[in-house]
Amino acid sequence: MIPRYSRPEMAAIWSPETKFRIWFEIEAHAADAMAELGIVPKEAAKTIWDKAGNATFDIDRIDEIERETKHDVIAFLTHLAEIVGPEARFVHQGMTSSDVLDTCLSVQLVRATDILLADLDRLLAALKKRAFEHKDAVTIGRSHGIHAEPTTFGVKLAQAYAEFERCRTRLVNAREEIATCAISGAVGTFANIDPSVEAHVAEKMGLKPEPVSTQVIPRDRHAMYFSTLAVIASSIERLSVEVRHLQRTEVLEAEEYFSPGQKGSSAMPHKRNPVLSENLTGLARMVRAYAMPAMENVALWHERDISHSSVERMIGPDATVTLDFALMRLTGMMEKLVVYPETMDKNLNKFRGLVHSQRVLLALTQAGVSREDAYRLVQRNAMKVWEEGADFLEELLGDKDVRAALSEDEIREKFDLGYHTKHVDTIFERVFGES
Amino acid sequence: MIPRYSRPEMAAIWSPETKFRIWFEIEAHAADAMAELGIVPKEAAKTIWDKAGNATFDIDRIDEIERETKHDVIAFLTHLAEIVGPEARFVHQGMTSSDVLDTCLSVQLVRATDILLADLDRLLAALKKRAFEHKDAVTIGRSHGIHAEPTTFGVKLAQAYAEFERCRTRLVNAREEIATCAISGAVGTFANIDPSVEAHVAEKMGLKPEPVSTQVIPRDRHAMYFSTLAVIASSIERLSVEVRHLQRTEVLEAEEYFSPGQKGSSAMPHKRNPVLSENLTGLARMVRAYAMPAMENVALWHERDISHSSVERMIGPDATVTLDFALMRLTGMMEKLVVYPETMDKNLNKFRGLVHSQRVLLALTQAGVSREDAYRLVQRNAMKVWEEGADFLEELLGDKDVRAALSEDEIREKFDLGYHTKHVDTIFERVFGES
Amino acid sequence: MIPRYSRPEMAAIWSPETKFRIWFEIEAHAADAMAELGIVPKEAAKTIWDKAGNATFDIDRIDEIERETKHDVIAFLTHLAEIVGPEARFVHQGMTSSDVLDTCLSVQLVRATDILLADLDRLLAALKKRAFEHKDAVTIGRSHGIHAEPTTFGVKLAQAYAEFERCRTRLVNAREEIATCAISGAVGTFANIDPSVEAHVAEKMGLKPEPVSTQVIPRDRHAMYFSTLAVIASSIERLSVEVRHLQRTEVLEAEEYFSPGQKGSSAMPHKRNPVLSENLTGLARMVRAYAMPAMENVALWHERDISHSSVERMIGPDATVTLDFALMRLTGMMEKLVVYPETMDKNLNKFRGLVHSQRVLLALTQAGVSREDAYRLVQRNAMKVWEEGADFLEELLGDKDVRAALSEDEIREKFDLGYHTKHVDTIFERVFGES
Amino acid sequence: MIPRYSRPEMAAIWSPETKFRIWFEIEAHAADAMAELGIVPKEAAKTIWDKAGNATFDIDRIDEIERETKHDVIAFLTHLAEIVGPEARFVHQGMTSSDVLDTCLSVQLVRATDILLADLDRLLAALKKRAFEHKDAVTIGRSHGIHAEPTTFGVKLAQAYAEFERCRTRLVNAREEIATCAISGAVGTFANIDPSVEAHVAEKMGLKPEPVSTQVIPRDRHAMYFSTLAVIASSIERLSVEVRHLQRTEVLEAEEYFSPGQKGSSAMPHKRNPVLSENLTGLARMVRAYAMPAMENVALWHERDISHSSVERMIGPDATVTLDFALMRLTGMMEKLVVYPETMDKNLNKFRGLVHSQRVLLALTQAGVSREDAYRLVQRNAMKVWEEGADFLEELLGDKDVRAALSEDEIREKFDLGYHTKHVDTIFERVFGES
Repeated sequence: MIPRYSRPEMAAIWSPETKFRIWFEIEAHAADAMAELGIVPKEAAKTIWDKAGNATFDIDRIDEIERETKHDVIAFLTHLAEIVGPEARFVHQGMTSSDVLDTCLSVQLVRATDILLADLDRLLAALKKRAFEHKDAVTIGRSHGIHAEPTTFGVKLAQAYAEFERCRTRLVNAREEIATCAISGAVGTFANIDPSVEAHVAEKMGLKPEPVSTQVIPRDRHAMYFSTLAVIASSIERLSVEVRHLQRTEVLEAEEYFSPGQKGSSAMPHKRNPVLSENLTGLARMVRAYAMPAMENVALWHERDISHSSVERMIGPDATVTLDFALMRLTGMMEKLVVYPETMDKNLNKFRGLVHSQRVLLALTQAGVSREDAYRLVQRNAMKVWEEGADFLEELLGDKDVRAALSEDEIREKFDLGYHTKHVDTIFERVFGES
Repeated sequence: MIPRYSRPEMAAIWSPETKFRIWFEIEAHAADAMAELGIVPKEAAKTIWDKAGNATFDIDRIDEIERETKHDVIAFLTHLAEIVGPEARFVHQGMTSSDVLDTCLSVQLVRATDILLADLDRLLAALKKRAFEHKDAVTIGRSHGIHAEPTTFGVKLAQAYAEFERCRTRLVNAREEIATCAISGAVGTFANIDPSVEAHVAEKMGLKPEPVSTQVIPRDRHAMYFSTLAVIASSIERLSVEVRHLQRTEVLEAEEYFSPGQKGSSAMPHKRNPVLSENLTGLARMVRAYAMPAMENVALWHERDISHSSVERMIGPDATVTLDFALMRLTGMMEKLVVYPETMDKNLNKFRGLVHSQRVLLALTQAGVSREDAYRLVQRNAMKVWEEGADFLEELLGDKDVRAALSEDEIREKFDLGYHTKHVDTIFERVFGES
Repeated sequence: MIPRYSRPEMAAIWSPETKFRIWFEIEAHAADAMAELGIVPKEAAKTIWDKAGNATFDIDRIDEIERETKHDVIAFLTHLAEIVGPEARFVHQGMTSSDVLDTCLSVQLVRATDILLADLDRLLAALKKRAFEHKDAVTIGRSHGIHAEPTTFGVKLAQAYAEFERCRTRLVNAREEIATCAISGAVGTFANIDPSVEAHVAEKMGLKPEPVSTQVIPRDRHAMYFSTLAVIASSIERLSVEVRHLQRTEVLEAEEYFSPGQKGSSAMPHKRNPVLSENLTGLARMVRAYAMPAMENVALWHERDISHSSVERMIGPDATVTLDFALMRLTGMMEKLVVYPETMDKNLNKFRGLVHSQRVLLALTQAGVSREDAYRLVQRNAMKVWEEGADFLEELLGDKDVRAALSEDEIREKFDLGYHTKHVDTIFERVFGES
Repeated sequence: MIPRYSRPEMAAIWSPETKFRIWFEIEAHAADAMAELGIVPKEAAKTIWDKAGNATFDIDRIDEIERETKHDVIAFLTHLAEIVGPEARFVHQGMTSSDVLDTCLSVQLVRATDILLADLDRLLAALKKRAFEHKDAVTIGRSHGIHAEPTTFGVKLAQAYAEFERCRTRLVNAREEIATCAISGAVGTFANIDPSVEAHVAEKMGLKPEPVSTQVIPRDRHAMYFSTLAVIASSIERLSVEVRHLQRTEVLEAEEYFSPGQKGSSAMPHKRNPVLSENLTGLARMVRAYAMPAMENVALWHERDISHSSVERMIGPDATVTLDFALMRLTGMMEKLVVYPETMDKNLNKFRGLVHSQRVLLALTQAGVSREDAYRLVQRNAMKVWEEGADFLEELLGDKDVRAALSEDEIREKFDLGYHTKHVDTIFERVFGES
């Protein structure tokens, strides 16, 4: 997480201010629940909210205390006591630091996920809009980077839409994975704290109680969470690589938007680089990398160790902030993507009709020509196109062996692009529920 | 995937025999659908089933043809024609190799997943059984590898159960991810094949049609699938590491089962190594590693390239076979795990009652002793235990300052383990729905 | 490691036959050294060689014994005793299984590395030959996939050569990392075996003694080894991606060789797919993935555990066999790469001279035109090229403001490609030591 | 890279101030070289140094310009012109941004590596000191976490020393990998800049010229660099895991140092957690994770793309800062590690002499007892120890069948720990060159 690749809203989730605010809320809600149980005076629980509910925590002061105590939660509680006064002694009763830290991480990840879900919604909206806009823009489909058969630019974008819609579903699942709360005390036995406290805090913080925690929330949840982000990053990479390909000098079927100021070099008008999609390719590599340490975090020793903590202090912000930034950059890029249908058309016809050779071959055999002969006929005309720059349709029309089998209309019909796009509506119906 | 770490049922899914059988079924079902559409003679579709429905494909023959044609699907179709005869020309019409290959991979992964789900069920059953068996076996909970507070061995196993139940849910989701079928022809436009063919094949093969394929099924699905296996592997590692710790010479609260034959070395009765759980730790590393190339596979170029293929030829079998083997090994290990409640008890009392020092401290303050004094009282008795090997309870009972605040009964009550286990039923209810 | 991506010579290193042969040699050399020390009768040491030096070990028999004993080294030793007779009791004295297993793995990895080094030499020879062949073939250099400035195809290949030469150096270092021998007995203290035995075995097996082993050879060595293979794989990916780009329909500056038989589809002469380089891209992902578990293997518990073993049984063959296959495939691909200098020239001139706009701009300013004016002059001519398809040189020659600053010769000189290639010799001298 | 896990000296390398200072030096040295060639007035080159050689660059101002130009190098050059005046037009002639950026990254990585090498030297010194201090402290060696044979604590540390010495060698190699300089202009052809400029800048910046760059320094170098850091991190993990194991409550052979203030809880004197080594375990996971994106960066498109940049902006600081912090934390931890030889001794004797059973078994057979009988004799005494808590030596001395074969002295001799430590000097000589 570096400022260059951060958006303020997401970065704020990981600020000390937010963290201490969440810690406070967890502690104060827990105190309420304990007051309900009669463990803590109701008046005390109320005082905690009254005195600190709108207080600004002094980060420097907390840091100062932590330098002494070498313990972040104790430092916070000490500072809280400075604000709340004597009633502060009722805070954190029977709880462990992990109760606060792990539940706080859940809240942060849930909030981060809600931003990511909104990001995905904006991306999906952009993709849908552009897909319909270019639904019928015929373009050559490519397998292995080689011209294959025609498709439409809309179908390409429909594919991206479907892929990110799957990403959205995955992210909803991932959110559920980490939306749990543990207020279960040392080694998770509830010996010193009643399960109803956990239930209350969970409800207030928008979480569910962790069925069985062992002081910590089990880290398979976080492993699944960060792995899901890594898969989403891989989909970002796919769409970015597509744009990079489309913007290649020799292809140039689409381009990232260049603001007039940015372009600068109209002395080299060809030199517009797909720097956003390249940047996204790199960011995707980073988000993907964070999955591995998250998975290595799962095997904590016995009830818990603290090895996961340093990892999460880094990948918590790094993964969510970077993915948020990448999704928004991708959305902007796709919204403004400059599309060149004429170049698509030109590229499609690069080999002057050869793209239709398969259909002609099939038509010949269906007209009764033996497969060997049909192949020979197509081939001799195809090679004239390939080697001499001839036009495939004209060659076929002028080949009397071909004409013996197929009429001019029949031949021309094989060059109809509509043949390839006839199911685009079907595909759009499947993806968008409309076409 | 090496024989040493393979089970036959799972390995069979990846055999050439199975693969060609699935290829045949896809082709034959597709022919049925085309016959229904009138594209292919119904008689021909029937002949395909009649001649090859029960045929054994000759792997060597197919390999021989592939060496010539350098194309596996063509080699198979050529061999199929040798079996079916002239009607074979109606097979594969309008289809691409990817239609067959990708749909086959889906079928294989679905079948593999069904085995993995059954594995998980067996593991869950074993964990549940052992959890209830040791529900009340009090043992020391450890944070950082250091004695913390008491818990029960059953709670440890309940945690593992809950974790693998989450893994099961994830695997069900992952199965849904890859249970799709694409019969959409070149670049996925259905230009040469009707979508109804795909629908028919999908239904017959137990899959859903891929909403939009681009000749290939999009690889974000497989990335999610293999990432899920990687997370499950991480949970295997966690439980294996727990067993390795429990079996340490100095801990010895549980041991992998050693068959009388295996033990051999009763001249060194202490030398029973947790080789199964160590082996599982290594296998987990492997399954985890396969997630990365699966994620790198997502960004295929344009409509498709073939870079994913070599990866999947390896990780398809490697990840599923290894995970299946690991789950079954883990299940067997947990079913037979030899548990030593007496050692648990002995370890718990290693420091002669010190484990209860926190409760005594709290009791003193609740009895009106100032926090500073209470701390000093506990500390002076604790240090006698720690440094001189005294018994904590006896020291406290003999400390007149302590006794001034707490009666003998009150002190003894603090040494009651029931305090720590009172919510075990709650936890079991949460995890198992019963206690 | 699957047969499809294996070469026999490398696969043979990992066969049971080779493994048992190496085990035998380690044991027999150790016996020699012990005979020299007087611990074992010289006659016995000789008998071991006489009876088993040329024997064929019966893999099935060893497997049968292992099924009983569940220990591979004991199974081998038992079978060895069946061959050697009573003198077999002098084999393995004071040694542990790890002494045999780890030293054997070192021998296997060293042999594998020697093959990989030979692979690299063949690749380097191919790259050098092709680099000199196309040293002066001017082609457009591309940054961001966008035309930048001219370079030559030879320089591209010189870069690849330099990169793989670095890979060779890295591999030599990696070979040294794992070329160590440990015959140090239980926990590596030499309590039961003299260090001179290790020295003797090391020398005979082409290894160096491990300075301090703890029963096992430390796994940081293997981590470094497999990480090095992963980096080499990444370089394979780079060159493969370059070829994939060059073979794109719109670029087509080079193509993988297609044998006449393979081509088949001259009805679609454009449809030649870069399947080898795509395949290599996938294989690179796999070799890269194996680095991670090798690094996770480093942190064995205390003197050793066995978690590394399952990993190495898989990645030992998988990584070396796959990398060997990939290097040889890459070498063949580069040796036969079909290069199209005419297309390079055509692509270079795609924008009719615009590639020289920067030089013209500079020349104008050097001729005293203000930077703003120079920019405006170049821009107005560039835009005619970009938007109207004009020829840049002709436009400039016909622009009287330009001509006021530069003569025709001066302008024409800016279109000289020799300007860009004047240091190609320098680069070749640096890379190849000749030009 | 987060402040919590950063040391100022290393973090400073990655500050904007340092970066711009290096950029300036590259530009100014390049100008010198160009002045030498007569391309730039010598006076101008001197002015650049005079005006900006000691100037403080205004980061905010540069950021402000970058927000406009969206180009960091141009922003810097613009600001530099504000300082230098008209002579600034001679700066950066014929160069590309990559010349500055890539060479700067090399300088930063070289400086970072020099700190890391110094870190390793401090760690090695600490390990050596502690190794000699505990050279003869006999402790039980453990395989699989199970007691095996005795070794010494010094040997454990000697192993760590040897491992980190290998890490040092690897780091020296890695430093050489990235200590290169590219000042080769667009696509690396030197068309606009003489190679002698590169040679001059390289020498001044402590680098070597890159033999062939393609505008960028090839990223296989960086992949190797970050992979090497990842391997070093894995060795940090190994030693940290060792300490975590040693500090386990049941083992307690060593402990991280707790300052009196930190301990706090002497009411729970057993509750000292190995938080430093756990923290290091997590940090190691992070440094390891950064290797993967560095390897994915290698396959840039054609001469270059910019996808590597976002990755390196993150992992450049993240990997070096984290590794530096981890190495220093590890060094401090090992320097102050509290070692408990008495506990080592106690643990060694946990099974009252059973650790010597193997030697007794061997002695019996050497005394002529059949292997079966010897085994039976040892076993029956061993089981008394294991099951009834007897003392192995006493049992043997009292077993008349044993005594029939071995004298009391012979039996007692088998319990001599010196047998296991007799080659410790050898090992120390190998590792440290002294003993």
